Amino acid sequence: MNLPLAITLGDPAGIGPEIIAKAFLQAPDDMAGCFVAGDVALLRRACHVVAPDVALPVVAIDTPDEALAAPPRCVPVLQVLEGAEPVLFGQVSALAGRLAGESVVWAARAALRGEVAGMVTAPLHKEALSAAGAPFSAFPGHTELLQAEAARHLGLPVAQLPVRMMLANDELRTVLVSIHVSLREAMEMVTSGNILDTLRIAHRSVGAALQRPPRIAVAGLNPHAGEGGLFGREEIEHIAPAVAAARAEGIDARGPFAPDTVFMRARHAPPAHPGEFDVVVAMYHDQGLIPVKYLGVEQGVNVTLGLPFVRTSPDHGTAFDIAGTGRADAASLLAAVRMARRLTGAADSRRHQ
Amino acid sequence: MNLPLAITLGDPAGIGPEIIAKAFLQAPDDMAGCFVAGDVALLRRACHVVAPDVALPVVAIDTPDEALAAPPRCVPVLQVLEGAEPVLFGQVSALAGRLAGESVVWAARAALRGEVAGMVTAPLHKEALSAAGAPFSAFPGHTELLQAEAARHLGLPVAQLPVRMMLANDELRTVLVSIHVSLREAMEMVTSGNILDTLRIAHRSVGAALQRPPRIAVAGLNPHAGEGGLFGREEIEHIAPAVAAARAEGIDARGPFAPDTVFMRARHAPPAHPGEFDVVVAMYHDQGLIPVKYLGVEQGVNVTLGLPFVRTSPDHGTAFDIAGTGRADAASLLAAVRMARRLTGAADSRRHQ
Repeated sequence: MNLPLAITLGDPAGIGPEIIAKAFLQAPDDMAGCFVAGDVALLRRACHVVAPDVALPVVAIDTPDEALAAPPRCVPVLQVLEGAEPVLFGQVSALAGRLAGESVVWAARAALRGEVAGMVTAPLHKEALSAAGAPFSAFPGHTELLQAEAARHLGLPVAQLPVRMMLANDELRTVLVSIHVSLREAMEMVTSGNILDTLRIAHRSVGAALQRPPRIAVAGLNPHAGEGGLFGREEIEHIAPAVAAARAEGIDARGPFAPDTVFMRARHAPPAHPGEFDVVVAMYHDQGLIPVKYLGVEQGVNVTLGLPFVRTSPDHGTAFDIAGTGRADAASLLAAVRMARRLTGAADSRRHQ
Repeated sequence: MNLPLAITLGDPAGIGPEIIAKAFLQAPDDMAGCFVAGDVALLRRACHVVAPDVALPVVAIDTPDEALAAPPRCVPVLQVLEGAEPVLFGQVSALAGRLAGESVVWAARAALRGEVAGMVTAPLHKEALSAAGAPFSAFPGHTELLQAEAARHLGLPVAQLPVRMMLANDELRTVLVSIHVSLREAMEMVTSGNILDTLRIAHRSVGAALQRPPRIAVAGLNPHAGEGGLFGREEIEHIAPAVAAARAEGIDARGPFAPDTVFMRARHAPPAHPGEFDVVVAMYHDQGLIPVKYLGVEQGVNVTLGLPFVRTSPDHGTAFDIAGTGRADAASLLAAVRMARRLTGAADSRRHQ
C-alpha cells in the first residue's frame, strides 16, 4: 500500500495550520507523503507565521496522490475549502468552525473511498463547530462526526458502529469506555455490553498495529477494583462478566485490576520497566488520561478506534491564546502522523533520507 | 525537639517486620532515633529472614528515649505486645490482626502523650484486623483507628476531627477528599464542606512541612472540569464555591482544573519541569493515586493529615505472598521515615555520619 495521509486543517483561528507548517519544516521525513486537506492561502499564512525568513513553499495539488511526489519542506495543499480569507487568529467564529468541519468531512470521505491511507486531524474548537450550524453543530467533536460519516457510508445505524478513543504515547496505551460525559453519566455507561464492545475494538485495532493479539488489562471502576464488593459492585456485576465474555472469544483480557496500579503495571519503559500489558481499558475519561498525560502532553496521540479507516490526532486543543505567534509545538502532531503511519502502512516515511 | 520516631509492626504475617529490619540494615542513618513498638521475638525472626549471615541485633528498650542511644544497625524494640509467638507468614489470623492493632494504638497514645515525635506505620491486613474483634474490627484501617484515638484524647467527637490522606513522592503531593468508598459514594462526598475541610487541612499541614503557604491546585470531578457545566455541575455547585471560601480565608487555592492535566502541571521534576503547585486536592481515591503511583510505588508515602501528631506509612500492603522470604523492598518504608522526619523535626538523622 502506498497511499498518502490527509492532514485536516483544524480550526484556522487556532494553532492547527501553523503546527502543520512547522511539522513540514522540522520533520520533512515524517511528513513525506502527507498533504493538507484545506486552503492554500491559510497554509501560506501559517508558513509565514512559522518561518518568515525561510523558504517553506505551499504547493497546490489536485489529487491526493500528487502528495507522494512533493519535495521535502514543501507543503502540498488540496484546496477543499472556499471563502477562508477573513479568519482571524484567536477568535471563535462560525466561519472557522465550518472550514474546520468541512476539512474533516472531505478527509473522511476520501478515506472511505480509499484515496488516502488515513487521516490526522488538527484540533477543532467545539464552540466554533457549534456556531457553524448544520450539519456540524450536531456533533460535539471529531469522533461523532467521523462515526456518522462512516456509518452512512456503510449503510449502518450509528449505534451499530461503536467507536472508542485510544490515547497513546511511547509508554502507555489506554482505550476509554466513555469520553465526554459527566462522571455520573460515565458510571452509567459501565455496562457489560459497553465494556465488551471496548474490548473487541481494542483487541482488533491494537492487534492490527502490533501484528499479534494484544495483552489487554481492564481497570476497575472503584478504589482497589471494589475490594471484593466492599467499595462498589460494578466490578462484580459488569466488568468481570465482560472480561469473561471477551476471554471466551479468544481475547487476552485480564482484570478488573485496581485502577491506581494497573497503569503503572502497563507502563512500558524498557529495559527497567517492560510493561505487563499492551493496552489498558479504562472505565472513564480521566482514569485513562491522567496517566497518559502525566509525563507531558507533547507525545500523546489520540486514535479513534472502530472506524473503517485510521484517524489519529494530537493530544491538545486549538490554543487560541498563542495562535498566530508561531510558538505552538508540533511534537504531538508529528507523533500523531507517525502513529497513523504505523497503523496504516502509509507511504514510506523514509524516502527522503 | 529531639524525640524518637515510633515504627509500628504492621501485620506480622506480612512483610512489616522484615521491611523494618531491612531498613535498619540498609539505611542506619535514616533509621537513627527510630524504634519498633512491637515484639522482640518477632523482630529477631525478621532480622534472621532479612540477614541470616549478618549481625543485625535486636535490643529491647524500656522507654522510647532509649532509642536515641542505640548504635547503628541495631534494632531497638519496645515490647508492647504479648503472645506473639505462633504467627505464621502469609496467613490471615485474628492474632496477627490484634498484634498489629495493638502496636498502632500504643504508638498513637505515645504520640498523644508527647513521648514520640510521630509514627510510621507498617501495613495492616484489613481482614485480619476485622477478625481480631473489638475494638479493632470497628476500623477499616489505620486512619480511622488513629482518628478515634486522637478524638478521644482531645475530648472531641470524631466528626469534629476531620482527617485526610495525602499521598506523596518526590514529584507530587495529592490530598484526597475521600478514600476507601465506592466511586458512587465518593461523588456524594464532593460537597463544599468536605472540600473546604480538605483545603484547610492541606494548607495547614503542607504549609507546616514547607514552612510557607502552599500553592494548592484543586482538581475538578468531571472531564475537563465539567467544561462550564456541559459534563456535570459539581464544579459549579460545590468545588468552585469551596475554592472561593478557602481563598477568602487566605488559602492559596486555585481551580477547579481539568483533572487530566492538573497533575502533570503540578509534577515537580526540576529543572526541566518545576511544578506549578505544591499539592493537588483530588476529588476521589484513584484520581489522586493514579498519577502518584504511575512512575512506581517504591517511593510513595502515605501521610495522614489533620491528626494532632505526624503519621506516615509506606504506599503498599502486607504482601502476604512474599512474606518471610526477605525479598520485600524497604524503599517505601524508608521514604515514609524520611517524610516523618521532615514533618516533625524528629531526632537528627545524621548523627551516625
